[in-house]
Amino acid sequence: MALDNAKRPHERLAAALAGDLAEVNALIATRMASEHAPRIPEVTAHLVEAGGKRLRPMLTLASARMCGYGGPYHVHLAATVEFIHTATLLHDDVVDESAQRRGRPTANLLWDNKSSVLTGDYLFARAFQLMVETENLRVLNILSNAAATIAEGEVLQLTAAQDLRTDESVYLQVVRGKTAALFSAATEVGGVIAGRPETEIRALFDYGDALGIAFQIVDDLLDYGGDAAATGKNVGDDFRERKLTLPVIKAVALADDEERAFWSRTIEKGKQEDGDLEHALALLAKHGAMEATRVDAIAWAEKAKTAIKTLPSHDLRDMLHDLADYVVARIN
Amino acid sequence: MALDNAKRPHERLAAALAGDLAEVNALIATRMASEHAPRIPEVTAHLVEAGGKRLRPMLTLASARMCGYGGPYHVHLAATVEFIHTATLLHDDVVDESAQRRGRPTANLLWDNKSSVLTGDYLFARAFQLMVETENLRVLNILSNAAATIAEGEVLQLTAAQDLRTDESVYLQVVRGKTAALFSAATEVGGVIAGRPETEIRALFDYGDALGIAFQIVDDLLDYGGDAAATGKNVGDDFRERKLTLPVIKAVALADDEERAFWSRTIEKGKQEDGDLEHALALLAKHGAMEATRVDAIAWAEKAKTAIKTLPSHDLRDMLHDLADYVVARIN
Repeated sequence: MALDNAKRPHERLAAALAGDLAEVNALIATRMASEHAPRIPEVTAHLVEAGGKRLRPMLTLASARMCGYGGPYHVHLAATVEFIHTATLLHDDVVDESAQRRGRPTANLLWDNKSSVLTGDYLFARAFQLMVETENLRVLNILSNAAATIAEGEVLQLTAAQDLRTDESVYLQVVRGKTAALFSAATEVGGVIAGRPETEIRALFDYGDALGIAFQIVDDLLDYGGDAAATGKNVGDDFRERKLTLPVIKAVALADDEERAFWSRTIEKGKQEDGDLEHALALLAKHGAMEATRVDAIAWAEKAKTAIKTLPSHDLRDMLHDLADYVVARIN
Repeated sequence: MALDNAKRPHERLAAALAGDLAEVNALIATRMASEHAPRIPEVTAHLVEAGGKRLRPMLTLASARMCGYGGPYHVHLAATVEFIHTATLLHDDVVDESAQRRGRPTANLLWDNKSSVLTGDYLFARAFQLMVETENLRVLNILSNAAATIAEGEVLQLTAAQDLRTDESVYLQVVRGKTAALFSAATEVGGVIAGRPETEIRALFDYGDALGIAFQIVDDLLDYGGDAAATGKNVGDDFRERKLTLPVIKAVALADDEERAFWSRTIEKGKQEDGDLEHALALLAKHGAMEATRVDAIAWAEKAKTAIKTLPSHDLRDMLHDLADYVVARIN
């Protein structure tokens, strides 16, 4: 146990859920296959095998298990959540023309936009097939609502991200859509299939929601201060892609006229020159925007911990609790 | 009634289903709206308002009504089917770089690829929400399977469409995916929600499947012989986009070495010059490929009519029967 505690929380979760995770991986491999369209596994293989940390499926597995679920469908739902996530990544790649994802070339550099869009659609459809197999209408409701919220958040980001009028409440709405909706659905359905009382289901939702928001804020923060080797992203990607994230929103709120003109030129008009990223970083430092963003991320992680603590005692509950700390520890 | 019979079948269907169609249109308008992302209705409005003929929703409404369905969910399912169709169009626009759709500029000329992909995702999610509201697991199964088959067909087309080895059986598989899967799901779910016997549900499926295949073959045929004003497509779009459709597959099967080299250069390698379309049309004529394709389309329309005739007598059944004739009448 001492050795176990030395591991990072997501590694402890992966160890505790190893059997379930193996089933999820097997189910993903089976359902991703296409008899008729061999390009599909070619496009998805490098995403699904690179695998990230399987964070979202683990949220579903841990929630279901700590709620005492003994049936087979937490595996289906964990695979559903991962398919929705992977489909979103494929469509994001088309969208963002991002040059790196998880440290590998994005699908649409390896393949074309066509393959990324249509393979993403295939994974969405596969996700819906998997969730339908659970025959649990409440679960279907939660996950189809999450899918709509994700798409809405992504579309909102298109307009909001390059508009200096975007404030913290709009940012939160975008983040709830593009990231937190899947986290909260992932934890909520675990409680739902286990048939737990409403207060516990609500606590699981609140945990996922707050964890997802903390996760995305940290991601946005690392974009301005992270190390490309560790994060698989280049510093300043969001700036170059003209994405108004929380650090910049905070700096814009405190900007004088000259600074505002700078943000307007670089983010709204997209006219960027050499040295602009360095100037942006200086403005973030000047206004304490990085530190203020960090405080927000920690507050959301605290909310997640508060929510999960209301649930009955369980090893997995404690790992989820520690996971919230770990998500923000990346910025400490 | 004499006046009614003078109308074209889809107009007679629209008249007979006017009340239901009005509910479908109202539901589409409500569910397409997004409180948070105003760009969504902007992107979809011109597609949904242009409206095509609402052919697919009418298939669901007619199937449910002729099966005696008296509940509210045929409206949800008709809207579901139209949302899936519209989402597919949006993603096709990204995919095909097609310059015209229903005689209007495509969404991705008005908007960017980002908006088209993400708004399509939103419509897919809205479709799933609508179908979940029916609380009918068999319907959910049929429609989520159809969504997977559609995506699979579209991905298969990516590789098959530019490969001269693609034969008629692969073509049929692509067409079943990209077009017929939604037609057959649209008719099948009508029988399912009405709780009809399996033989009738199967007949409805067979009708939709055959109608969809006939519809797509006619579409492919018109691409080489239609009139842009009537079809909203330019003659030769498929040729320019290097899409191996049935007329070309038939001509390739009969090609001598020189002709094969022509098809390889223009379709496989995409090296097209002035006069190539005219030469392609001459080769199609030389091998009777247009006429042979027309014969196939008519045979599928006959299969659709044979299937629908097995169902109990009903005015709507007769209109669906005539609709099969109408679909191929466009090429007579």
